This record gives sequence, C-alpha cells and structure tokens, in this order.
Amino acid sequence: MPRSPMRAAPTEAMGFAMRTEPLKVALLGCGVVGSEVARLMTANAADLAARVGVPLELAGIAVRRPNRQREVPGVAPELFTTDAEALVKRDDVDLVIEVIGGIEPSRALILAALESGKSVVSANKALLAEDGATLYQAAEKHGADLYYEAAVAGAIPLLRPLRESLVGDRVSRVLGIVNGTTNFILDRMDTTGAGFTEALEEATSLGYAEADPTADVEGFDAAAKAAILAGLAFHTRVTASDVHREGITEVTAADIASARAMNSVVKLLAICEVDPVAGKVSARVHPAMIPRSHPLAGVREAYNAVFIESESAGQLMFYGPGAGGSPTASAVLGDLVAIARNKMTGRRGPGESAYAGLTVRPVGEARTRYHISLDVDDKPGVLSAVAGIFAEQDVSIATVRQSGRGPDATLVIVTHLAPDAALTATVARLRALDFVRDVSSVMRVESE
Amino acid sequence: MPRSPMRAAPTEAMGFAMRTEPLKVALLGCGVVGSEVARLMTANAADLAARVGVPLELAGIAVRRPNRQREVPGVAPELFTTDAEALVKRDDVDLVIEVIGGIEPSRALILAALESGKSVVSANKALLAEDGATLYQAAEKHGADLYYEAAVAGAIPLLRPLRESLVGDRVSRVLGIVNGTTNFILDRMDTTGAGFTEALEEATSLGYAEADPTADVEGFDAAAKAAILAGLAFHTRVTASDVHREGITEVTAADIASARAMNSVVKLLAICEVDPVAGKVSARVHPAMIPRSHPLAGVREAYNAVFIESESAGQLMFYGPGAGGSPTASAVLGDLVAIARNKMTGRRGPGESAYAGLTVRPVGEARTRYHISLDVDDKPGVLSAVAGIFAEQDVSIATVRQSGRGPDATLVIVTHLAPDAALTATVARLRALDFVRDVSSVMRVESE
Repeated sequence: MPRSPMRAAPTEAMGFAMRTEPLKVALLGCGVVGSEVARLMTANAADLAARVGVPLELAGIAVRRPNRQREVPGVAPELFTTDAEALVKRDDVDLVIEVIGGIEPSRALILAALESGKSVVSANKALLAEDGATLYQAAEKHGADLYYEAAVAGAIPLLRPLRESLVGDRVSRVLGIVNGTTNFILDRMDTTGAGFTEALEEATSLGYAEADPTADVEGFDAAAKAAILAGLAFHTRVTASDVHREGITEVTAADIASARAMNSVVKLLAICEVDPVAGKVSARVHPAMIPRSHPLAGVREAYNAVFIESESAGQLMFYGPGAGGSPTASAVLGDLVAIARNKMTGRRGPGESAYAGLTVRPVGEARTRYHISLDVDDKPGVLSAVAGIFAEQDVSIATVRQSGRGPDATLVIVTHLAPDAALTATVARLRALDFVRDVSSVMRVESE
Repeated sequence: MPRSPMRAAPTEAMGFAMRTEPLKVALLGCGVVGSEVARLMTANAADLAARVGVPLELAGIAVRRPNRQREVPGVAPELFTTDAEALVKRDDVDLVIEVIGGIEPSRALILAALESGKSVVSANKALLAEDGATLYQAAEKHGADLYYEAAVAGAIPLLRPLRESLVGDRVSRVLGIVNGTTNFILDRMDTTGAGFTEALEEATSLGYAEADPTADVEGFDAAAKAAILAGLAFHTRVTASDVHREGITEVTAADIASARAMNSVVKLLAICEVDPVAGKVSARVHPAMIPRSHPLAGVREAYNAVFIESESAGQLMFYGPGAGGSPTASAVLGDLVAIARNKMTGRRGPGESAYAGLTVRPVGEARTRYHISLDVDDKPGVLSAVAGIFAEQDVSIATVRQSGRGPDATLVIVTHLAPDAALTATVARLRALDFVRDVSSVMRVESE
C-alpha cells in the first residue's frame, strides 16, 4: 500500500533500512567534460560517498570511438563501451549522466534512462532548449529526476537558484553573458582593436573556440541557454526557436570603436523578459552596447555573468567560469549528488514548472534602444531630414553627435526605447537616403 | 509497511492521491520581514499555489505586542496572536516560518515545530550560528525540513548553491561582504571622507543602521553568517564563537585615506578557509584593505557579495541586496515553497552535512598580510631598526613607502603573508620603539 504522501516515511526519519551498496552510474560521453567527471568521481570518491551516504561507482562509460586512447586516471579501461543503449538499460545502473551533447542519440538515451526510472544529469543545452518538455514528461511519468545545472553558464549555480531559491518571488528580467567564446572574442576586440576574424583566430588557438565556431559566434549556444533561462524564470515553455538570435560575426572593429567613444563596450547578451499583464514572454540574443559602468561590462575573457531582476529580491548577479571541463564537471557532480541523495531517500527534486503558459512576443515588439552611425554628406538640411525619418517611425532620439567634416562627416545617433520593428524600419529608411553614404554601425544599447 | 526507500512512490510518479486542501502556515514575527512575507503570501497567492500545487494559507501570526497597530494588506486582524507556542502546536498548522530573531524564544518555538514534524523556514542567523546542530538533529529525528536561505546575504541565493550545487566539488575559500550596514558606512567614509561616527549617523538616519548598531558595527552579525557559511562550505560544524571577530568601530578616516593612497578600499570581510591536510577550518571577520580592481571593491552602499572558490568550479561570485524586508522575504518565500513542495510529496531537502568534523584554527595561525602606517622621527637608522623588528618576527616586508619629512614623516609598510600572531607581535614591538611616535593605522590586506 502506498504510504501517505503527507508524512515522511519512518525509513527516512529514523535512518534505518537504508541501502549500503554503491549506487552505479552510467556516464554517456567522455570528452572534455566526461573525462573530468570520471576523474573527479574517482579522485573525490570518499567525499562524494560521505555526502551521498553510499559510494558512487562508475558502471560504464559510453564512447563513440573505442580505439581512441583514453587516459582517465583511476578508470579501468574495461569500463569503456560503444553500446550506450545497452549501458543505459543495464539492470545494475542506477543513475545516468549524459555529456554527449546534440539532439540524437542523447534524447533517445535520456528517455530510455528515465523510462526505466533512472534519474538523469545532463549538460545538454541544445536538447533541453529544443525538447525539454518531452524529457520532463518522461521524468514525471516514471518518477525520476532530471537535473541540468551544467547546461547553462557552466559551474555558476544559476538554474537551482531560479528553480528553487526564487520560486517564491516574481522574476521580471534575466540579462546575461552566457557564452564564454563570444565574450572572449569581443573582449579581445575591445582591448586590442582587432577585427572579428583576427580575434576569432586567437580564441581558436587558445582553445576558447572550437574548430567549427558556428554554434558560439552565430549565437545558437546562447539562444539555447536563453530559452532554458526564460522557461525557468517565467514558469512557461520556451524553445530555442522562440529566441530571436543574432550572432557576433557582423560586429566590426568600427562598432567596437563607436562603443568605446561612448564609454561603452559591446557584449553578446541574452535577454529574457516577461509582460505578465499581456501574458507574454520574450527572449533574445544579440550584441549590444552597455556602458562601462555596468557590472556586465567588467566581465572579461571567457567568464559568464547573469543578472536576475525580481519583484522582491531586486537585482542579483551570478558570476563565474561559464565553460571548460572542470567547471562544467563541478556542476554535473553537484547534480549527481542531488539525484543520488534523492534516490537514497525515495525523494525527487522539483519537476517542470510551466503553469504560466505564456505566449512568445516577437522581437519586433520588444522595446530596445539603437545606436546608429551614419556616414553622411556634410551639407545643410541633413540632420533635419534624418530626424524626420525617426519622427515618421515614432522613434524618439536621445542624443545626436556629429564628428568630422566634409567627406568624413559622421552622425552618431542614440535613440530612446522604441519597438524593435520601428527601429529596424528607421534604419532601412536611412539606408535609402541619397545623402547617407553608409550606415556604418547599427547596434542595440542596453543601459540598465 | 514502509515502502522501499529505493523506489519513488507511485503516488508521486502518477500524481494521484495528492492533497488538495491548503497548507497552513504559522508566521512567527511580524516586523519588517514578517509583514512583507504576510503581504506577499496574500498578493502572490495564485502564483504560490500554482508552484506548490495547493494554496498556502496563513494560519496565524505570532506577535509580541498585540496592541501595536498592524496593517498588512489583505491579512485579517484576527490572525494575530501573542501565543506563539499555541500557534506552533496547533494541529491544523503544517509549516512554520520564524522571523523573530535572537536565541529565545525562537529556539524553543522552532524545536516545538520540528518535534511535531512541521518543517520550518527561519531567517535567524544568530540562532543557526549558535546552535544549528540542535535544530538539525530535531529536524532529522522527526523527518522535517529546516531551510534558512534568508539567514545569510538576504535574497542572494547562497546557501542553496553551497548545500546543493557545489556539493560535488571541494570549496577551498569563501570571501565576502555579508553585512550591508557596515558596507554602507565604509562606502560613505570612502566617498565622503567622513569619520566612522558621522557615517554611522547617516546610516541610522537613512534606516540602514538600527538604533543600537552593535550587532552590525562590532561584526557579530557578520560573524554569525561566517559561521554558517564555513559550516556549509566545509561540511563541518562551526559556531559564532569559533569566528575571530573585529568590527569597524576602530576604522578611522586616516585608515580610509591610507587605503585610498594605495588605490584600495576598506571593507568588512568574512573569510572562511579550510586546510584539508591539517583538517582545520578558519573563519574570521575583520576590516581589510582590498585593491580597487578587486570585484568586491565595487560593491557599494548596503549591497552584499560573496566569492566562493572551489577546486573544480573555480571562482564564483554572488551579488545582490543583503538585507531589507523585500529581499529577505523573497528568500523566505523561496524556502517556504520548497518545504511546501516537499511536504506535498513526502520528500525532504538535504539535512546537515558535518561529516568532515574539522577543528577550528585560531586566528593567530591564519596567514594574512598587514598594512601598517607609522609616524616616526625622521632620522638615520629608523628604517633599519623598523626592518629589524619585522625580521625578528620572521615577517617579510613587501613594500615600504616614506611620506613627509621631519615631524610629518610617515612610514607605510605592507607585508607579505605571515602568521597573524607574528604580525600582531610585530605591531606590539613597533609601538614600543621610542622613535615611533604613533602607529596610526594597522589593517589587514586581502589581495586575491
């Protein structure tokens, strides 16, 4: 007979009848993160056992290429297997860690684990942002846990605070730097004056960018994280395709110089906002200028930082290394201890919270500010004509600055908050003016 | 028959047989935090119900003075009672929030709640730092939860990340600004050049300091928080009396000016460190100079920020409002939702983790750096004699700077890391030298 859910079981309260044999863990993937997870599970075995109550033992490590030399200190070579599916389904496997990445076969493997009641830790932002709901439903149906702190901002504890600490509050906005590779590139462009290509090359040679940097520099990685953050912050479902996404490949040295002239820096920001009255949520990823006095402006190199604004708590910031084997492994192991403890006591962590059911607001409706640099003919009436275009679109101008004269004349315009669609239309109209020789920089501005 | 702790109960997995009537909450204390908790429980009732699964209903509010006019919007006057004990023990009360503060009657009330299996949220740093172990034992014995995120750094999610997110990692150091009142005072001294008394008066008039500011300015509040942080970070028991404590009442405008001359600021820091090889933990609270380039130097006014350094995650920082009714209420409500969800599903959150059983290292053994300003007679041989005193104590000097000549001659000395006891002894010897007219400033320096 199932016990009442309203009373803690005597087994929990008194601490008897507890399992003493090890919990067996299947590790799927053994790249940078997976090998560090395996190493730490061995090196810190005594601490982990003390924190869980029983030892955590590696049951097997699924890899794609069996012949590649694996050297994980303390891990027996016979633990490696290429049959991930068989490993997940083994009767002696209690818990599963997925650090393969990508949609398939990760999704099928995670679902197989959850369907046999095995709790899962995943670091897979792409999968969670595309199809988190399916995973959550499987976890709920089969009484298993799904934890994924490592999927966003590496080691920075961000999802647990959002899911649990702030659950009694109303989050209004999440604003952050969630991709280390692009932050490294933009930081280098700012400090050295380098162009995008040059800075990307440096990032690649230092190991901050992958051989194919598309996921990072085109903003796909940040968009997946923005979807996850928006969903958790606003208790609704948001997928990666709901996120407006612009990468940093179009950011030029001239943009960075423009920002510098305004005492600002360019950052790739993930911005999640909610309009509770309209029942709408928005999530966008794009480069933006922020003033150097803004705390996010001081986030250098490959670090991440995220602001969370909420009704009662006010403004919180979380800062730390956003990627890398060790930091990501720290987040994975924190989740592993959590699901192991839950399993030891028949408990479960929080499931999906998507009761709000908000709709996604298109980026055109988002209210933003633009910084626009125009190379113009230096003749009377130009400013008046330009100002007229802004007025037509109902966009209010905050500041105008003219630099240079004659053929070097440049107008730098910063607007007040306006709908993004109106700003886009304004820029298109400006480009069509015959005395505008070039729109040399268009960038959103975030100031608070 | 108790179910096996190794399988999630069908009731949880399938979601049937769930309670639908409201969970009833006893609120103990209705000051700044309590009244905000009551207000938010009413104003955000629908959201909270959606997140918990059933409504949360105030069963009663215990106050000390019945006649004081209470105006909490939406809260019926008949909910107020002066009999806290009877309220806690009422059969229809499911959960208890303690925001009274202080040791008694809070301890007796919390124990009464836990002993009847009622989970508790507390914001009581003094009690948790003095006698947390007793509370934890009662919670464990009776299968109840004890959450206290609000006890340290207000709304900043700090304890949950330490207890849960970093539980698979090894924390090596916690360094932070955990008292908003003293940070406000030191910030004002830095920006306006005011002395301690003047800055304290401003803090009091603006509501940042209480009428009796002792707990804040003498470092008792920060020491209690340091004890809680050290215990959680290092999985051991640390009480407030284990924490070396120095307040800011002795910090002078001259100290602040000295710091400024070194491009540094003075902050009241809580520093928790572990030496796993020696099996020792240390926790100390004292003013210290930090360089302006340090992220903690930019923490202004009454804000809090805490750095956590760990083996795998590296350096993390958490920043936000450290006090105030609304931020603290946010943390209390986050915990309230957590214990309510746990109760709905017969689960429990993590209990005490004190398996490491470390001993406390006295502050004399802590390795610190000192900044020392000496007013000296300007004559040959002085520097040599002063340097000799440092050498006698085996303290290595990093920099010496002489400013002024004749009767205004000042030597500013910054040491390398040395045992605190050796530095104290050095200062005592310097004071005794006849050509040292005054030791005008002695302050520890933290640089990383």
